Amino acid sequence: MHVRVLGSAAGGGYPQWNCNHPNSRRARAGEAGAKARTQSSIAVSADGQRWLLCNASPDLRQQINDNAVLQPAAAGPLRASPIQSVMLTNADVDHVTGLLTLRESQAFNLYATSRVQGVLAANSIFNVLNPAFVARHAISLDEAFRPLAADGSELGLTVTAFAVPGKVALWLEDAAKGVDIGAVTEDTVALEIRSTVSGEGFFYIPACARMTEELAARLRGAALVFFDGTLWVDDEMIRDGVGSKTGQRMGHLSVSGADGSMALLAGLAVKRKVFIHINTTNPILLEQSPERAAVAAAGWEVAYDGMALSL
Amino acid sequence: MHVRVLGSAAGGGYPQWNCNHPNSRRARAGEAGAKARTQSSIAVSADGQRWLLCNASPDLRQQINDNAVLQPAAAGPLRASPIQSVMLTNADVDHVTGLLTLRESQAFNLYATSRVQGVLAANSIFNVLNPAFVARHAISLDEAFRPLAADGSELGLTVTAFAVPGKVALWLEDAAKGVDIGAVTEDTVALEIRSTVSGEGFFYIPACARMTEELAARLRGAALVFFDGTLWVDDEMIRDGVGSKTGQRMGHLSVSGADGSMALLAGLAVKRKVFIHINTTNPILLEQSPERAAVAAAGWEVAYDGMALSL
Repeated sequence: MHVRVLGSAAGGGYPQWNCNHPNSRRARAGEAGAKARTQSSIAVSADGQRWLLCNASPDLRQQINDNAVLQPAAAGPLRASPIQSVMLTNADVDHVTGLLTLRESQAFNLYATSRVQGVLAANSIFNVLNPAFVARHAISLDEAFRPLAADGSELGLTVTAFAVPGKVALWLEDAAKGVDIGAVTEDTVALEIRSTVSGEGFFYIPACARMTEELAARLRGAALVFFDGTLWVDDEMIRDGVGSKTGQRMGHLSVSGADGSMALLAGLAVKRKVFIHINTTNPILLEQSPERAAVAAAGWEVAYDGMALSL
Repeated sequence: MHVRVLGSAAGGGYPQWNCNHPNSRRARAGEAGAKARTQSSIAVSADGQRWLLCNASPDLRQQINDNAVLQPAAAGPLRASPIQSVMLTNADVDHVTGLLTLRESQAFNLYATSRVQGVLAANSIFNVLNPAFVARHAISLDEAFRPLAADGSELGLTVTAFAVPGKVALWLEDAAKGVDIGAVTEDTVALEIRSTVSGEGFFYIPACARMTEELAARLRGAALVFFDGTLWVDDEMIRDGVGSKTGQRMGHLSVSGADGSMALLAGLAVKRKVFIHINTTNPILLEQSPERAAVAAAGWEVAYDGMALSL
């Protein structure tokens, strides 16, 4: 099974368009130890030919241009794509906007919970996905399904979507009802993806507000986990003067600290641990930083765009 | 007055994500005479500091990364942007999707006709533009207005939006009503932009289905015109096997031929003529092609990403 990191940054990317944080300035200046990153997305393939896209980031067109495996094969028909299926983990702008790039009449299967499908249906701009070509499937949490290629054949993968602690997408927050941070609902979904050929599998968890016993049990002994690496410390955006929200308010566990993801995953015997969905303010983006050294010492990798993994 | 071409390709960009046309393959291979291009957009500034964005393409994040003039000044505050105003010419996916990049709490003014503003209002995903920061202004055709900076000061520009022959955005087409190609309505809008300082001005016309006497009169003697360069010949997409629609069906005049834009603008004494919004199939994208030589011989330039012009 092949996994390709298309985008490793959090919403807004690294650098973010309007961000003047020293980290963003370093990436803009092209510093070698501060690689620019696009917005969080991965692609998965059992055969290396036909791919499942996990989330469609606003940077998808650039990501396709940067990853030859997602480009039409030179010997293929005049319109073609290795992207056969798309799975959305929620309705965040940084996870759905790329659908607008996958126009106009290219066949693929689009999987999401009925809540997310409802959001797409309520926004007519997504009608640019021609219904004669794009099949929208409502999937249920905790039920493994086999994503299909455009021609209806199986991709050789099983996907199980499950809820993790989080919150509703920012643009869907309802001020009148308040926001229930850390609730385990359909709004924040993680994926377990397995190869039906090798049986190997991994977890993709780009957002998670807290660890639960259930989640720890799922991850124990896993071959590979991509985990929410948004912030180093909870008050980082406030401290650095670039925002008013804590990580918790945004639905993200921090990386560091006694109640951070490094500590909470330490005892779970996960073989390969990779931080993804990394915010501009997080010092693990800087390859020479002590924080980067600390995550490496704890056995973690930091995802970068174009990172290729095999299982 | 400064004009920067952010994206010079038509919707989908060059190469297009699922396009295997020989032109797209050349751009993917990085051939020197086949420069890749992002989707159609320009930025305009009277002072070189504060910019008006004309259309927000899906590639906007990449375009900001590629054009330092649109990045926060190094000495500026932690959140900042030179983009002070955005003007939309219609509700095409390739003209509005970039708004989703301009999140979340950065102040700017958003100008469009009431019809386009209505489309944005009806698609809740655009709520990601925080109404406390982003002011949406409905403008009227044929009435010059002065776009404002985020702080309410004038940018030193006047913009006049006017209808040109065209058609409604593809995703808003109504099969039941049919599509009125070439109608002069609010659906296809061109811009005349002038500096209030120098009085110099230019036209931005990324889509136009036919020439009218009124349009010819407007353009006569202009210092600079960006004009719809989508297709070389009307049946190009059908002939090349990549589509079923003529240029006319898509609302675009062709470049070549007795009734093409080269011929129709030849007698109008426009000082500088630049093709923009160029489709992957158009041979003028290839710098060594006879078609490129023909447009050059006729006094036309072919826009490229990052092209900088001054008036």
